[in-house]
Parts: sequence; structure tokens; C-alpha cells
Amino acid sequence: MNDLTSWVNVPVDSDFPIHNLPFGIFSTAERTKRVGVAIGDQILDLKALHMLGYLENLPFSLADFEAPVLNPMIARGKQATRELRQRLQKLLDATRPDLRDKEHHVGQILVPQSEAAMHLPVHIGDYTDFYSSEDHARNVGKMFRDPDNALLPNWKHLPVGYHGRASSIVVSGTPLKRPHGQMRPDPEAPPVFGPSRLLDFELEMAFITYPGKPLGEPIALAEAEEYIFGLTLFNDWSARDIQAWEYVPLGPFLGKNFGSTMSPWVVTLDALEPYRIPGPDQVDPPVLPYLKVEAPGHFDVDLAVEIVPENGQGAVVCRSNLKHLYWNMAQQLAHHTVNGCNVRGGDVLASGTISGPEPGSFGSMLEISWRGSKPFAMPDGSERRFIQDGDSVRLTGCAAAPGKPRIGFGEATGRIVPA
Amino acid sequence: MNDLTSWVNVPVDSDFPIHNLPFGIFSTAERTKRVGVAIGDQILDLKALHMLGYLENLPFSLADFEAPVLNPMIARGKQATRELRQRLQKLLDATRPDLRDKEHHVGQILVPQSEAAMHLPVHIGDYTDFYSSEDHARNVGKMFRDPDNALLPNWKHLPVGYHGRASSIVVSGTPLKRPHGQMRPDPEAPPVFGPSRLLDFELEMAFITYPGKPLGEPIALAEAEEYIFGLTLFNDWSARDIQAWEYVPLGPFLGKNFGSTMSPWVVTLDALEPYRIPGPDQVDPPVLPYLKVEAPGHFDVDLAVEIVPENGQGAVVCRSNLKHLYWNMAQQLAHHTVNGCNVRGGDVLASGTISGPEPGSFGSMLEISWRGSKPFAMPDGSERRFIQDGDSVRLTGCAAAPGKPRIGFGEATGRIVPA
Repeated sequence: MNDLTSWVNVPVDSDFPIHNLPFGIFSTAERTKRVGVAIGDQILDLKALHMLGYLENLPFSLADFEAPVLNPMIARGKQATRELRQRLQKLLDATRPDLRDKEHHVGQILVPQSEAAMHLPVHIGDYTDFYSSEDHARNVGKMFRDPDNALLPNWKHLPVGYHGRASSIVVSGTPLKRPHGQMRPDPEAPPVFGPSRLLDFELEMAFITYPGKPLGEPIALAEAEEYIFGLTLFNDWSARDIQAWEYVPLGPFLGKNFGSTMSPWVVTLDALEPYRIPGPDQVDPPVLPYLKVEAPGHFDVDLAVEIVPENGQGAVVCRSNLKHLYWNMAQQLAHHTVNGCNVRGGDVLASGTISGPEPGSFGSMLEISWRGSKPFAMPDGSERRFIQDGDSVRLTGCAAAPGKPRIGFGEATGRIVPA
Repeated sequence: MNDLTSWVNVPVDSDFPIHNLPFGIFSTAERTKRVGVAIGDQILDLKALHMLGYLENLPFSLADFEAPVLNPMIARGKQATRELRQRLQKLLDATRPDLRDKEHHVGQILVPQSEAAMHLPVHIGDYTDFYSSEDHARNVGKMFRDPDNALLPNWKHLPVGYHGRASSIVVSGTPLKRPHGQMRPDPEAPPVFGPSRLLDFELEMAFITYPGKPLGEPIALAEAEEYIFGLTLFNDWSARDIQAWEYVPLGPFLGKNFGSTMSPWVVTLDALEPYRIPGPDQVDPPVLPYLKVEAPGHFDVDLAVEIVPENGQGAVVCRSNLKHLYWNMAQQLAHHTVNGCNVRGGDVLASGTISGPEPGSFGSMLEISWRGSKPFAMPDGSERRFIQDGDSVRLTGCAAAPGKPRIGFGEATGRIVPA
């Protein structure tokens, strides 16, 4: 499988070799929004490919590929999208002439990524955010609660999560305004109103669902991955000062819903298969049977966060890994639906901040600067406790290992503009 | 205005006189899902009305009325839907012959409600639930926290709210299964898994929005009502035992998202105008300027909750009123968007449980039975601490006063079936 190469030129450090083939929505000056697949620094135009007859005998119609979101394609189900991806892999295989040798077709179905605009890949019916990194939960617990009892009693019994705002999820590259809001910097004085002073990122990954079961019917852990289409990078921007004042007792609200940034390419679970690994033992305390993992369901994906000041040199502030989660995706989905809650195709379930165990692997400025007490030194001599106006925050992710294909996620980048 | 009568027969106790004209989505054996307006015990078919030419010179197309949700119609904006409602009022006016005397048309445009199925009125992009009744917040605070400091410090400074689940909102009449979940009845023992034992209703009202502003642009309090289309009854079902165990620190999740029940008819803000009243003084503490109310923004709407056991006699367990809110709808919407969060047409923002000051006006079994310590005596001799399998919970609401038209909301009813 790793011997596979494509007749499309793929730079050696590309996130998108023939083994990956992530799906996204793109447009160009000439092409309306449609489904595309990344290969090297090109995009395969699935609408054009379908019109030229290369996707025959697959359970898709042209409308699925000329849609402005992936939802119609996703709605065909896992078996269908799996067959589609296998077909694309064959069409792009360097040893197969079917498409390779049709020069007049190749010109129609390949678009340079540099000429394309990428869009939010799915219409998101509901967005859920979990809190599944033990190190992140411990760090937050140490800072704001009790250092000796950093984890709350429920944390190791269930994947704690909450509903987020779907309307304000934007695709990588969309600037976001620093939010205004209420905060109470002096707990003895009344709250004040103004631009957030403690603006933060959160390094997360999100998974996108196939249509689930009807309301009232849980998805069991053993079948949960059948309902997971793929993953993206996800920055759950957070205004810590707004959040701290508002969040008791019903959870985060305006401290989060001013915007979240998603990477445009959805990497399928199939593409990540070579990087499947076991998760942590969950025996202390033992988890309830509906959450008990029987087969490896974690994935080894390196993650990084870079802060790039306006007109300045960037610095990597975090290197973490998707494996630093206590609860895996199948557990999250099984828990989410165990009460009968229904998921729809294109729903987004994010991991929560993914922090590793050591400094340097913390997934938010809150943790990196330890509530502002340990500023991060930037190459230009400035310091960062939180995110400043003009800063771009760039999340990247990539699974790579000797002898295995590189499976990358592209990037989720957002720039903060003044309030 | 109150002298207005319709040539359509309207029973004297009808929720839907010519002064109301709420919008909904209905279907019959012969008619596909489409937009209708309630009048007496009939439904005015807006698709048929448009096809017969009665809606000319209004900014709507046929597609707006043959849609399976109100969103396309709502997307035309407040001025448009206001003009539409005024046109309908004229067409239904007993003194006007335009439609009244066209017997062959009347047969095509009126459908008995008894022959129609009602559907969820909107596609809900995002659902937000507030917590805006002071009496409810105090009751909960007294039970679970400190009786002397029942309100949390932020409560009178901002309308506390959280994101709920849009996918599991169902229309009145849809049965809901008792949810399974984790709970920890014995705080010294590990959590257990099973059907919720403390299933509850929450008496709420919800408002539905017009399309708001782009991401990053707040809706100011003074203009907020321009973005509110209308209101429905709303039962935010709650599994108290699941909620109590899961909700720290990120808020309610599986304790709520197994289902919420909405009434099918959306009553416009225009129809409620005769019942506009001032809200409470908000001077202790004073609210921040962006939340300061300059004009009356509360509404006087009587609400009731009835529990009807399977094959048994029902009992009204609560009589409350929409006026028992500290924060009004305009404040909720202004707060929700003050950080730049965008709302879309058809979004649902619910009030939170609407409890009044005295026993008898409490909007949940949690409060009515005071955590189970004061069971409610049902007519059949049984008791209710929480909701039992087979129970139907019926929310009704109506604004009525001498010399004013009756503006009713129909009902939001849901029956709990065994887990």
C-alpha cells in the first residue's frame, strides 16, 4: 500500500499523498463551489470527474458533487464514500493509464490549490465540544480549583461535553474580531464591559458524522466508527475573561461562540488506519460497560500550534498529539447518543483542547502561560500571555512514521482583528 | 381593531381569532408540507392562496409557501411578513367580500385543523436556552446551593444561557422515550447506568429569529425586536439525575438533549402587541448600558402545565405567566450577539423555566415537588414527584384580557414512553 504512487506530482513533504485523499469544498474563478479531493498541491474536481464518466457504478449522483457542502455525499453512507475513495485511488495510481493518459481530461479535472478558495466543508446541524484530554482538564483544575483534586468526580466516568454554536464555525483563513463582552476582572467590583483581554486558542480536532440513528436509538460503542466520516483540525477560540464570569452554572457561552476555526480538508478514518493505536487503560476507575473499549480506537497524529504576529516571525508554541486523549471518538459518540440523542450527517464533535503531559505540549495559552504568569517569548522580542490583535494562530496536524504514508490535515488558521 | 371579526367561524374560546394569525407547517393526505395560518379551527393554506393570486404585490414567491419549513418565508424579513399578515387579515375580514364571497376558492384555501398533521415549524440552525426566571433560579439555588445566596453572582448582570441541541427538538405530539444515562444516586458509590428516574418537564417559551447580522456585528437592544419573528411554547425536558452528575463544569448535556417539545404555531410579536408590559426594575444591581431597557419589552401571557396520565384524568400542576422573567427577549438577543455571535433565520432562543413567585406557579416538577419532598396529588389518587411512563405533559399559553383579543399558542404536548 505504501508503494502506491500517483501520476500527479506529490511533493515529498505534502500532507496529501495518494494514501490520504481528503474531501473538501472548493471554488475558483470559473468553478462554482463543489466537492474536491486534495492530491499533492492539486485538487481533483469530483463534479468534473463525474461528468466525464469516471465515477460510474458508484452510488452517487452529480448533485452530490456539485453541492456547496459535503453533506449530500456523506449522506450516502460509509460504504459508498469508502468505494468512492478507492475508485479515486485507482484513477490516480501511477501504474494505471485510465485517467493518467487522457491529457484532455486531466486538464479538466485537476485544479491547483493555489488557484482555489476553500470553504467550510459541511453544513453543521449541531456542534458538540468535548473535554477529553486528561492533561488539559488537570491543568485547568489545578489553576482554578484544587491542585490536589484537579479532576472533577465525573471526569473519568464519562466524556464531559457541551453543546457549542454551529453558526459561528468558519473555515481556515477567515479573520475573527476580538469579542466584546462582560467580565469581572476585580471580583470585589461590578463587572465591566469591553473587548476581551484574555483571548485564547484551543488546539482541538473534530470529527464529522454520517447520518446517525433516529431519535431514541443509541449508537453502541462497537458500531460508533461506522458513523464517523473523517476529521479536521479545530480551533475553539476562547475569551477566558468572558468565560470565567458567565459560565456558572450552565457552561461556556459567549466566551466561545464568537467563532471557531476549522480546516477545510476532511481526512477520512480509512486514511488514518495505519496510525490506529490503543488508548489509555481505563480501569481506575473502571468505565461503565457502554463505554468499555474492546479494540484500539485512538490515533497517533502529531499536532502543532504556531503564533504568527502581524509582519513578524512566527513561533511554534505547542507540539501535541491526538493520542493524548483519555476518551476516544467512538466513546464520545456512544456517550452522546446513549440517551437517544440523534446525530445527523455533517454534525461536528470536537475533542476539547488536546494537551500533552509536559510543558511544550499544552494546547492553549491559558496553560502555556499558566494563567499569564509565564509569558511565552516570541522571536521578535515580544511576549505572549494571550493572543494579541493581528496575531494569526495556525494549527497543523500530520500522521507520519517510518515506512508509513504521511497523512496530513493541512491547516486551520485564523487571524484576530481588533474589536 | 378588536371589533375585527372573520367570515371564518371562530369559536369564542379559540386561540386563533383573526387578531392572531400564527404561522405553521401542515400537511394533509392530499397536501404536501406547506405554510399555513391558523384561523379558528381551520388552517389557511398559503400555497393555495398564492396560486390563486391573493398574495400578489407582496415580496414572496410560491416557493416560500410550499417549503416544508418557515425559514424561506422568514428570510424575507420583518416588513415582508408583517405585510403578509396584514393582507391575510384583510382577506379574512368579515366586512370584505374579496375572498369571503368566492365560494369555490374558499373550499381550496381552508383546511380543518382536525384533518391536518402539524410539523416542526422551522429548520433550527442553533438552539439556545436561557435561564431568565428569577424565581426558578432562586428555587434551584435554594435546593442545590445556599438558601441565603440562592442567586449566583452573575445572574442579575447578564442573561445566563447555554447552547442546546437542535437535532432533537420535536413538534408537539411526538412521543419521547425515557432516556438512559449515567447518574450517581449515592455520592459515596460509583455511578450507575439505567433509565432516568427523575424525568422532568420545563415550562418555557421560545422565540424564533429573522436572519440576523453577519458574524462580528452585534444586534443592539434597541433594534433586537426587529429580528424576532414570533414565539412558541417550549418544553425543555430534563433528566435531573443525569444532569446533576454530568453538568459540572460545562453545563447540561445528556440530561437535556434527548428531546425538547415545541408547539407548532408561531405567534408573531405583532399579534402580542396588545399585551406588551414593562418588566422588572433592573437597578439593584444596575445592568450594564448594552442591556438597559428603555421601552417595555415584556409580554403578559398566561401559561399552564397539565399532566395527563395514560388512561387517567389530567391535572393542572402549574399556572405561570411569561411576564415572570427578569430578562426579556430583546435583552437575551442583544446579549447573545454582543460578542459578534451570528444568528440565522429560524434560530430558537428559549426562556428557561418560567416560574412565578408562589407555589402553584412553579414551572418544573423539581420545584413543584421540591426535589421530590412534596409529591403532587393526582385526581386518580396517585402521586407525582417526577414524570412517569405514559404521562403526557401539556403546555398551553394564552394572552387574554377584557376588551382585548384572545391570542393563544395552542399546545406543546409530549408523552413519555418507557425506556
